[in-house]
Amino acid sequence: MGSTGEYESQRRVRVPPSKPFLKSLQARLKETFFPDDPFRQFKNQPISNKFLLGLQYFVPIIEWAPRYTFDFFKADLIAGITVASLAVPQGISYASLASIPPILGLYSSFVPPLLYAMLGSSRDLAVGTVAVASLLISSMLGKEVSPTENPKQYVQLVFTATFFAGVFQASLGILRLGFIVDFLSHATIVGFMGGAATIVCFQQLKGILGLVHFTHETDLVSVMRSVFSQIHQWRWESAVLGCCFLFFLLLTRYFSKRKAAFFWINAMAPLTTVILGSLLVYLTHAEKHGVQVIGHLKKGLNPPSASDLAFGSPHLMAAIKTGIVIGIIGLAEGIAVGRTFAMFKNYHIDGNKEMIAFGMMNIAGSCTSCYLTAGPFSRTAVNFNAGSRSAVSNIVMATAVMFTLLFLTPLFHYTPLVVLSSIIIAAMLGLLDYEAAIHLWKIDKFDFFICLGAYLGVVLGSVEIGLIISITVSLLRIILFVARPRTMVLGNIPNSGIYRSMDQYQIANSVPGILILQIDAPVFFANASYLRERISRWIYEEEDGLKSAGEASLHYVILDLSAVGSIDTSGISMLEELMKNVHRKGLQLVLANPQSEVMKKLDKSKLIDKIGQGWIFLTVGEAVSACNCMLHTCKSIHVAVDQNAEENKV
Amino acid sequence: MGSTGEYESQRRVRVPPSKPFLKSLQARLKETFFPDDPFRQFKNQPISNKFLLGLQYFVPIIEWAPRYTFDFFKADLIAGITVASLAVPQGISYASLASIPPILGLYSSFVPPLLYAMLGSSRDLAVGTVAVASLLISSMLGKEVSPTENPKQYVQLVFTATFFAGVFQASLGILRLGFIVDFLSHATIVGFMGGAATIVCFQQLKGILGLVHFTHETDLVSVMRSVFSQIHQWRWESAVLGCCFLFFLLLTRYFSKRKAAFFWINAMAPLTTVILGSLLVYLTHAEKHGVQVIGHLKKGLNPPSASDLAFGSPHLMAAIKTGIVIGIIGLAEGIAVGRTFAMFKNYHIDGNKEMIAFGMMNIAGSCTSCYLTAGPFSRTAVNFNAGSRSAVSNIVMATAVMFTLLFLTPLFHYTPLVVLSSIIIAAMLGLLDYEAAIHLWKIDKFDFFICLGAYLGVVLGSVEIGLIISITVSLLRIILFVARPRTMVLGNIPNSGIYRSMDQYQIANSVPGILILQIDAPVFFANASYLRERISRWIYEEEDGLKSAGEASLHYVILDLSAVGSIDTSGISMLEELMKNVHRKGLQLVLANPQSEVMKKLDKSKLIDKIGQGWIFLTVGEAVSACNCMLHTCKSIHVAVDQNAEENKV
Repeated sequence: MGSTGEYESQRRVRVPPSKPFLKSLQARLKETFFPDDPFRQFKNQPISNKFLLGLQYFVPIIEWAPRYTFDFFKADLIAGITVASLAVPQGISYASLASIPPILGLYSSFVPPLLYAMLGSSRDLAVGTVAVASLLISSMLGKEVSPTENPKQYVQLVFTATFFAGVFQASLGILRLGFIVDFLSHATIVGFMGGAATIVCFQQLKGILGLVHFTHETDLVSVMRSVFSQIHQWRWESAVLGCCFLFFLLLTRYFSKRKAAFFWINAMAPLTTVILGSLLVYLTHAEKHGVQVIGHLKKGLNPPSASDLAFGSPHLMAAIKTGIVIGIIGLAEGIAVGRTFAMFKNYHIDGNKEMIAFGMMNIAGSCTSCYLTAGPFSRTAVNFNAGSRSAVSNIVMATAVMFTLLFLTPLFHYTPLVVLSSIIIAAMLGLLDYEAAIHLWKIDKFDFFICLGAYLGVVLGSVEIGLIISITVSLLRIILFVARPRTMVLGNIPNSGIYRSMDQYQIANSVPGILILQIDAPVFFANASYLRERISRWIYEEEDGLKSAGEASLHYVILDLSAVGSIDTSGISMLEELMKNVHRKGLQLVLANPQSEVMKKLDKSKLIDKIGQGWIFLTVGEAVSACNCMLHTCKSIHVAVDQNAEENKV
Repeated sequence: MGSTGEYESQRRVRVPPSKPFLKSLQARLKETFFPDDPFRQFKNQPISNKFLLGLQYFVPIIEWAPRYTFDFFKADLIAGITVASLAVPQGISYASLASIPPILGLYSSFVPPLLYAMLGSSRDLAVGTVAVASLLISSMLGKEVSPTENPKQYVQLVFTATFFAGVFQASLGILRLGFIVDFLSHATIVGFMGGAATIVCFQQLKGILGLVHFTHETDLVSVMRSVFSQIHQWRWESAVLGCCFLFFLLLTRYFSKRKAAFFWINAMAPLTTVILGSLLVYLTHAEKHGVQVIGHLKKGLNPPSASDLAFGSPHLMAAIKTGIVIGIIGLAEGIAVGRTFAMFKNYHIDGNKEMIAFGMMNIAGSCTSCYLTAGPFSRTAVNFNAGSRSAVSNIVMATAVMFTLLFLTPLFHYTPLVVLSSIIIAAMLGLLDYEAAIHLWKIDKFDFFICLGAYLGVVLGSVEIGLIISITVSLLRIILFVARPRTMVLGNIPNSGIYRSMDQYQIANSVPGILILQIDAPVFFANASYLRERISRWIYEEEDGLKSAGEASLHYVILDLSAVGSIDTSGISMLEELMKNVHRKGLQLVLANPQSEVMKKLDKSKLIDKIGQGWIFLTVGEAVSACNCMLHTCKSIHVAVDQNAEENKV
């Protein structure tokens, strides 16, 4: 191979310069945990600046407050009041979903938004309680302590779970483990949310039909059994009211979607139904005719609840487990929502920082009588559409809720529960994202089945089962991709030195006497023996095909390793066995474009010498030219190479 | 882009012809479960031939028996007798490791090898009991039923576990799920075997020191505590005998490694120690001075044990669990050993077929008083070195064991247990493959840590803990690779149109105004948001670097997708967001060499139109030329393209 000289040596495939183990480990860890390089702005700054930047990093309000203008405030004021009009009825409704006193839902819309406004990096996120987490709380903790028989102990457990959710969220952020949330794929979340929404809707039949007793199970079968076993308890007054309000809510949503000007009507609709419903009950005294009402709500701001955290409780493990599940669900939704809206306005959200903000907000919340809060999509969309400019809209909302808590709670005395049920159903129908499911089916069938698995798991099993199913299937997909990589035969694109998959490019032509294969995944223990078998089969089939067609026999097998990003010791053994196998058949193995990781390991394992440096090329094109040259013209080199191959056999 | 005309259209990146869903699913399933296309020989054959081929496929002996010659038989006879001389003492020893009567070890070397000779496809594998599985049986089942207090029930449980191991193995083979075994990487097996060997060696201190009571735990701490809490029970007679025999065994091994001619001495050494030990005890009556002996062994062949399978036992779940664990361990070792030796002789082993053979052998074994058998490395190596030519050596071995069972069992009456312990220790020391561990450290640090994790898990925890640790870490590695793919900046290799990673090729030069990035893994939900952040950072850093160097600003971002074998909906969303992001900065996104999967999904999601067909190129080189052309000369096209970009922004 020395004949081609200097030109050749310049274009040789390089073994990358070896780095000390600790240094490469450090680089690897940095890429894993700090991919966004959050500290780049700290570089080359004096210490005082570093301190200020650090403070701004952890408390973003310090960074943007000086630039805040009166115009911004006007916009935030309108947005904040609009969101508050949604937050108050939603807060009360979701609290009933979590089987806790309604007042806790209002408390939860006061302290956490204030904290988020200081610590959060999203300008659009409206903080509040979320339906799915509320459902999870009542289904996971309701199994441990009955919320009707032991209300005090149950509420303590809810605070404890919220506390652990906050601790978990904050530690994920501090330990830079935010990528765990990425494992909840979009498909998983669509299916999971849809399933939870379905369950919540059916559960609301309790409120709509005015039932008093109801199952704590969340699967469809139990819920429907509970509904239909009490047919004689159904209250038509309640049902009629519920259907009217639901119709009104859905109508406003429908119009707001068709015409942007109707947006405000939609945003105000829940508050309107609450007011209308309360008035109606107050005037007709319907509460005496089977329509249940909220009843007395205590006036006043959040009482402290740090002493209620039940660390000594026998149900501590359940609280920790619930905390982790609701914490991660809250994060997944909150960060996805934050990112979506940040994209509209072209700013960046730091996932790990958001996690710390969410965590702090929930730790503080659990000490001030709040339960889990996150960034619900519906509320954030209202905030965004109402024209919010910064997190100040959260402060405005919290202030409005504070006024409600201080002065307006008596007004909710006559609010019928059925109104809350209609508000919940209307909100949940928006979470049934069937369009997204159709989109998944069109683009990627596998994603669709992950989504369907999550949906069915939640609806027919439980929320946890749905989560476990879809995460397992998602991970299996990754592992299956790695375990069964595709190998493709490459052909020459006419009039070029380019080689591409013959499946994809029907114009590509195969090269006589040479089989060119591409592996399109890293080579790991999980696929090493598959690849060995599959490549052997390619060679066998090619030889067989050539033989039956009576054409010239095979001489070279070129492996295009462009797409092999990584290889482990099993992969190296596989290559070595493959080489021996190929040599035994009297063929020559040629490698094209191995990447740095592969070259490094070929070098360390000395396999590079067994294959021969001269049989490793920069491109498939160069490999083919070299092979062709030896096959047809350059006989002298051919002999030398054969000798080389003989040596390798030993 | 129309100006370059016909040439361009021929070299356009193709969307592969779309296949119906069911057809592509079928192709995908075939690749997953039948990668070796085992039925290719059945194609285009008359039915009678198909039947014969099918029979030959499932019972390989029919295929090779007609070609069997007398020369082969002579070789197999010698090999078989040699293996038998090892199998008898090893069988008795490993049975004591599994806490079952020694005679069961002999039974297990009779029926299973006969079955394997008919069904198995390896010519070199010598079937027999294996130390690690024996250890697992006593540690997993010993927890449920005490082998000393309830020996009958314990043995029934062992048969039941063996039965389930066989069923599990056969079903893996029939369902073509053999790739599950591939998930036990080489590194895992090295660490796991080493750990088990260490534990077994320390456990043998019981036999060497002549202790009667001993712990059933397998972790190092419990074993050492058990040894040192009984210092006053240590028997020096036993210890002296044990050390002498161990020294003898290790010496023969040492010499056999240095000189091939000593191979026979090594192979015969265990039998020799048994004979010497028995003679010594018989002559000195040492059994009356604290040296424990085997005692009475029943004469006769395997009694049937089908009625002993305890399907109604309350410990059934434990038996099933143990069956699955020992079944998979047996397969992993057996198939790895079979493949290794098949490679030496250049024939092929079909993993799924082997699994069926192993399964059948264990199902039949569990009905004829045998416990779990597999293909131990030590015995197979002896078989291979003694010159075996086919599975007939297994038949010879089984016949020799049959003679032993019929006539020679009384001779083992005086065999001291300490001899068995030395045989086990000598065999186990061979499993401590520290050279492989050093090899792993040199080539792949991560593999080394997987190996170390398995080793420490087994030694300090339990066999199951070691297995779980190493499999989890191996899978985490795959997931981490996918979650954190590398992105590399490409540069131009001088005097060529080739673009390669600037890290690997220090001679590569960057192209002014153009940033070329390569993603080297499939784009999935697990890495989509990482990639978005990382690529944004590359662009940011590049712009920053150019600005501070006062050079021309960035105009194009080329993404080389050659190594992106697959993409899911999250990946497509990521590309779309990236495109919007890039456009917002006033740059243009260009794709190079997307593979068929990626093209398909770009097409289905209509993203291809948003990016613009004209911005997708066959190679990085062509993409760079097009960009350069627009930057410097072809102004007219530039305007058209800007318009295009404007449209895309909407």
